[in-house]
Amino acid sequence: VDKMETSNSIRFGMQAVFTAQPGKGEELAQILLQASQVVSHLEGCMIYLVQVASADQDKILITEVWENQEDQQTSLANTEVRELINRARPLIVAMEHTPAKPLGGKGL
Amino acid sequence: VDKMETSNSIRFGMQAVFTAQPGKGEELAQILLQASQVVSHLEGCMIYLVQVASADQDKILITEVWENQEDQQTSLANTEVRELINRARPLIVAMEHTPAKPLGGKGL
Repeated sequence: VDKMETSNSIRFGMQAVFTAQPGKGEELAQILLQASQVVSHLEGCMIYLVQVASADQDKILITEVWENQEDQQTSLANTEVRELINRARPLIVAMEHTPAKPLGGKGL
Repeated sequence: VDKMETSNSIRFGMQAVFTAQPGKGEELAQILLQASQVVSHLEGCMIYLVQVASADQDKILITEVWENQEDQQTSLANTEVRELINRARPLIVAMEHTPAKPLGGKGL
């Protein structure tokens, strides 16, 4: 893929908070950690961070940064990613999802 | 500082969403980007990511990861960090703040 150095301006990111079924936070986190392994090898994935809220073990926080939104969309078609999403879906009762533009900072 | 390799388990992280005064999102983001520069040199800072919500330019998203909570607390006493916090405070109308434990993923 002959991609010129993707400029900062078209980077794509997000923060999400998943609320799992009661007691299912650990299981959901493990699935999302597997997803992070898969996407880490996919084109354009820069950050895919999985955290568990300190005050609520059923709340799983995800931070993502991609070189561009197109690569992020493409990842959703990946068979392994789709399989993991299907496994995670029944465990999720709510999701807050904030698409964003990464501006900078440590870790990019 | 003779610190044994800090194990994964005591890492400290968070996601935050700052809502700026109307029209002040850009100014707040610039201050938080400066803060990310300062903390990037401080002991234990692993990730300090600044993003702006795509749907609302006055919503600034922060993801942080530290080797441990102690280092994060120490950073709040840093004179430059305190000065930036004081500059940011009047611009902020609301803040959602979720302390968390980083579990893994790409970027750590």
